[in-house]
Amino acid sequence: MNKAKIGVVGGTGYTGSELLRLLSQHPNAEVVAVTSRADAGTPVAAMFPHLRGRLDLAFAVPDEAPLQDCDLVFFATPNGTAMHQAGALLASGVRVIDLAADFRLKDVALWERWYGMQHAAPELVADAVYGLPEINRDAIRGARLVANPGCYPTAVTLGLLPLIESGAVDARRIIADVKSGISGAGRKASTGLLMAEAGESFKAYSVGGHRHQPEICANICAATGQVIGLTFVPHLLPMVRGIEATLYAPRASDDVDLEAVYRSRYRDEPFVDVVPADMAVETRSVRGTNLCRMAVTEPLGDGIVVVQSVIDNLMKGAAGQAVQNMNLMLGYDEAMGLSLPALVP
Amino acid sequence: MNKAKIGVVGGTGYTGSELLRLLSQHPNAEVVAVTSRADAGTPVAAMFPHLRGRLDLAFAVPDEAPLQDCDLVFFATPNGTAMHQAGALLASGVRVIDLAADFRLKDVALWERWYGMQHAAPELVADAVYGLPEINRDAIRGARLVANPGCYPTAVTLGLLPLIESGAVDARRIIADVKSGISGAGRKASTGLLMAEAGESFKAYSVGGHRHQPEICANICAATGQVIGLTFVPHLLPMVRGIEATLYAPRASDDVDLEAVYRSRYRDEPFVDVVPADMAVETRSVRGTNLCRMAVTEPLGDGIVVVQSVIDNLMKGAAGQAVQNMNLMLGYDEAMGLSLPALVP
Amino acid sequence: MNKAKIGVVGGTGYTGSELLRLLSQHPNAEVVAVTSRADAGTPVAAMFPHLRGRLDLAFAVPDEAPLQDCDLVFFATPNGTAMHQAGALLASGVRVIDLAADFRLKDVALWERWYGMQHAAPELVADAVYGLPEINRDAIRGARLVANPGCYPTAVTLGLLPLIESGAVDARRIIADVKSGISGAGRKASTGLLMAEAGESFKAYSVGGHRHQPEICANICAATGQVIGLTFVPHLLPMVRGIEATLYAPRASDDVDLEAVYRSRYRDEPFVDVVPADMAVETRSVRGTNLCRMAVTEPLGDGIVVVQSVIDNLMKGAAGQAVQNMNLMLGYDEAMGLSLPALVP
Amino acid sequence: MNKAKIGVVGGTGYTGSELLRLLSQHPNAEVVAVTSRADAGTPVAAMFPHLRGRLDLAFAVPDEAPLQDCDLVFFATPNGTAMHQAGALLASGVRVIDLAADFRLKDVALWERWYGMQHAAPELVADAVYGLPEINRDAIRGARLVANPGCYPTAVTLGLLPLIESGAVDARRIIADVKSGISGAGRKASTGLLMAEAGESFKAYSVGGHRHQPEICANICAATGQVIGLTFVPHLLPMVRGIEATLYAPRASDDVDLEAVYRSRYRDEPFVDVVPADMAVETRSVRGTNLCRMAVTEPLGDGIVVVQSVIDNLMKGAAGQAVQNMNLMLGYDEAMGLSLPALVP
Repeated sequence: MNKAKIGVVGGTGYTGSELLRLLSQHPNAEVVAVTSRADAGTPVAAMFPHLRGRLDLAFAVPDEAPLQDCDLVFFATPNGTAMHQAGALLASGVRVIDLAADFRLKDVALWERWYGMQHAAPELVADAVYGLPEINRDAIRGARLVANPGCYPTAVTLGLLPLIESGAVDARRIIADVKSGISGAGRKASTGLLMAEAGESFKAYSVGGHRHQPEICANICAATGQVIGLTFVPHLLPMVRGIEATLYAPRASDDVDLEAVYRSRYRDEPFVDVVPADMAVETRSVRGTNLCRMAVTEPLGDGIVVVQSVIDNLMKGAAGQAVQNMNLMLGYDEAMGLSLPALVP
Repeated sequence: MNKAKIGVVGGTGYTGSELLRLLSQHPNAEVVAVTSRADAGTPVAAMFPHLRGRLDLAFAVPDEAPLQDCDLVFFATPNGTAMHQAGALLASGVRVIDLAADFRLKDVALWERWYGMQHAAPELVADAVYGLPEINRDAIRGARLVANPGCYPTAVTLGLLPLIESGAVDARRIIADVKSGISGAGRKASTGLLMAEAGESFKAYSVGGHRHQPEICANICAATGQVIGLTFVPHLLPMVRGIEATLYAPRASDDVDLEAVYRSRYRDEPFVDVVPADMAVETRSVRGTNLCRMAVTEPLGDGIVVVQSVIDNLMKGAAGQAVQNMNLMLGYDEAMGLSLPALVP
Repeated sequence: MNKAKIGVVGGTGYTGSELLRLLSQHPNAEVVAVTSRADAGTPVAAMFPHLRGRLDLAFAVPDEAPLQDCDLVFFATPNGTAMHQAGALLASGVRVIDLAADFRLKDVALWERWYGMQHAAPELVADAVYGLPEINRDAIRGARLVANPGCYPTAVTLGLLPLIESGAVDARRIIADVKSGISGAGRKASTGLLMAEAGESFKAYSVGGHRHQPEICANICAATGQVIGLTFVPHLLPMVRGIEATLYAPRASDDVDLEAVYRSRYRDEPFVDVVPADMAVETRSVRGTNLCRMAVTEPLGDGIVVVQSVIDNLMKGAAGQAVQNMNLMLGYDEAMGLSLPALVP
Repeated sequence: MNKAKIGVVGGTGYTGSELLRLLSQHPNAEVVAVTSRADAGTPVAAMFPHLRGRLDLAFAVPDEAPLQDCDLVFFATPNGTAMHQAGALLASGVRVIDLAADFRLKDVALWERWYGMQHAAPELVADAVYGLPEINRDAIRGARLVANPGCYPTAVTLGLLPLIESGAVDARRIIADVKSGISGAGRKASTGLLMAEAGESFKAYSVGGHRHQPEICANICAATGQVIGLTFVPHLLPMVRGIEATLYAPRASDDVDLEAVYRSRYRDEPFVDVVPADMAVETRSVRGTNLCRMAVTEPLGDGIVVVQSVIDNLMKGAAGQAVQNMNLMLGYDEAMGLSLPALVP
């Protein structure tokens, strides 16, 4: 089989470099273009020495890169970029996966409110498929445009789904207390992301409201038809990679064997691992992998179900899931290029 | 005023060394004995070089240390030690503060269930005063035996109190998602506490039930008369010092101005600082201090009140609070020796 | 005694905020002005919540701040700022301490080469006193303008001095392998200082040459009259605070008892602590203090002397030393306000 | 080709688990036995959740494990274990790689002095091949017993070799200032390795002499015939993985183009990467890989050559190099199973 020609728009951030890390060892993908307006001309391996010997390309100006000739183009750009450029590529027959938020919410007005800008391509939103294979696998296979999920929504949606689908909990009172390593905030020069600011400290942020809350609610509604009530509070961890979500919901039915429900729901999923309630669910156990690992229990039997869900925010939370989606869109084995073992310790 | 003579039983752990750090610069306290069976004879400053020039004592065998001559003795020992030794000291007129859990729960049967051992001095439990000055200040002033609160219970109890007292929330459905730096687990050679295990990772632990849950419930009940329903899940942070508690409760009354309630409740407290909801509540902002800093808000106005509460687990969560209690018991200014500024960054 | 009126120019960086942390608890100093052009109007405690309740000032535009009325003004500004503003203050009788590099090198041409700019006040350079009390105490007492030493030069100069003064080593072949926590790079939005870049990694930087190398050579020459040969390689540690210097020099004389030389040299120094060669010399043992702790040994007796020297880069390496200099200049006890105990762990 | 049957003795430490991580995805290796006396019966994936789904074995008692039937057995045991057990396996025709120090030094008396025990199998020492492929590739191919190098010796030997071989430096005055992440100290319950002890701090250790110093000297002597003078000081980094060595040597010859010498020496090496002197040499750039990355320069042209060399201590410094040696011994492609990309950030 010929390798698919792949383009990456905006390759200088963490989701971009993680995509390049994965694609450089993918058996059926060849990166033919990586763009960056600011760093055009710089060899990729000069900016990312860990890719030396793996990728022999320089960043190109977007307009000069052969994106139209690609089979598939990833946008690893800030929010609000792909919506301007995806249309032309799609019109040329190029498949597109956007790792930013442009096509994640079907409700354009809601999107505009949370993202604080006007949507430039509302007509594409309806066509876009939300790229969470565990709920949308078949649609992704046939999609031309995939909206890759946010990192928090991936961990939380996968953690909640079996609870909501099974009717085990009261879906109106869900709490998601989520924590992310700092790479989730991106590779941007911002004082708050300095090691001297974020190291050896911990805090909640965006307590008053975060963009990923409506995305999670929309996911659950799309998958189950239920409107949930969700309080979502993100926190910043003094570490680089990993997301942990601790989810709380009042138990509605005692008939449900929680762990059995989870095992059954994800039995055939290559990238979801349900572990017994007495096993630690550590972020490092999925570091560098595309896995979502989780456990469910009802502490002290007192009516509140607790789910722990961990992912690597750059993998299942971004680039890994994007490659999983690419595999589906191009008809490859879904796990191709994603079998890297976790790095522990 | 003569300095009070102070003894520290079990000075080789983190609460012990933190006590020594504080007492070595306290204007009215003089440490005259520090005990450690295992390290008897070792100069304190040899084990803790940061105390060089500040404390010229060696660890002593407990039986040979002049504890009976002290005005006050701290137990910085594992759970189950003070209950064997406090009685004799109290009988000699020595005041005692136990930084472990031996006297924290009035319900001895409950204590024995959670701590997995028989209580050796149930007769002292009733006399012991729970050392949280914000609810027990007067009783502490007159106490002979103080049970110094647990680290999590301090952060959570202070964070919840105004909510429960004011009737602003439904007290039956409270979630406490708490996170601690690893010094909270103590200075013991345990594989799980190694830097190569706990660094760059995050996880929940004791999800099925943690000893601090009944302590918090008892605190709230003692202070407000209300029986609360509390789901309490602790997590381990990849950092050394600091606890953050994010607390969730369903709003019961819309009439309450949440921030005003908090400001009013803690207006005269020297070690509680309520900040506006839009200010970050970072653990580092209280590092090395005896402060509990907190904020309250109702995200998106959708019915769940969220409180953030941070402390330094070794200070307000242990040694700092113990010195605050000592000051009260000895009639000193409550904040004496506790005005050290936070270390940031 | 009336408190001295103190101004801080450029209070939004780490050396500035550390100065404010120290001055806010200094018995004889009162901060009356803190300037920041960019953040004028912002309360200091809003930017630095750890100073809440300790400093009730807002950042002021430099031109509107009462700097002329101060007894002493600190410049905690980038290199190249104080040289423009110090002259006017000095002319008004205000004493000045510059925490940046403007007045550190007596050789203006050398300074201009290393700092890549023209010096704006070469006439002040000669008057400036290099503020390392261990070599310049008396001159500092009478100084109007003090050049506060660099962080690396403090750790390295103090570590080398007894070796060079005693003739114990060949001064032409000195290696200084130094490592700094990331707060040494300042509070500036730079990609390389992000936690996701600097966390969990280690590297040398400026291997080809660093500005602190000529400063160290000049220090040693000024103090001993000897021209040394120094290879200086700095490294970036994945932590926030602390500098460690490991110094290597070929032994020249076997007659010298190395440890005795060090103890003798620093016997009366309040902020230098020489420890036995078998005691660990950890950065954390001086965290938050103004101490320089060091040990000396000759491993395996094979002719190379090794010195370990640690400081807190923001304290003895910056703000702590600046306050020590202030105390000397204002006739206070040298250690006033600098007795804070180290924060360990 | 049938997969080789592989045994791992002592699989519960970091070198053991890293071996399992690598072998579980090696195309031509099948782990058939993993032993641990203390944890016999425990599934490997229960102790190491990151291996769930990758290795379906339980730890076995050494005596009951089918080690004799293996093609090759790794010892990932403490020093002093393999010397008791390797002989019997070798006699049965099983190839052996010892990741500990038992067979690293040819001089048994020297070994006994540094390791503080009597050698149990001096007759095997002569047969053992030191497993650094860059100097011993052909001998490794034919070896029955390979002594896998120490982590520091790998980074330092590879960094020094071109300098010594080319005569560019005076080999009598070499300084190696090396720094290691804490996983290098192993997975053992020791107070000094706790996160609360080693986090946010930095120190040198074993300054008076470290076992890896004679190993490095022996390596250089074996490879070049030259006796070097080496001062070796290790340091502990507040991070998990990675070693950096900064090496200093007085330049002896000006005729040598340093970078050219390094490029030439390692041109055909699959796991050594020489980078330009102006590129950062970060430990993270080799994290999770078997690479040694290095740069060479002469700062300020003042006569001291400086080499930076980084490895992942668990990979090229232990398990990765062991698999490289296995590949050579079994006639596989040297890089088989070792093409995992670095995990950055």
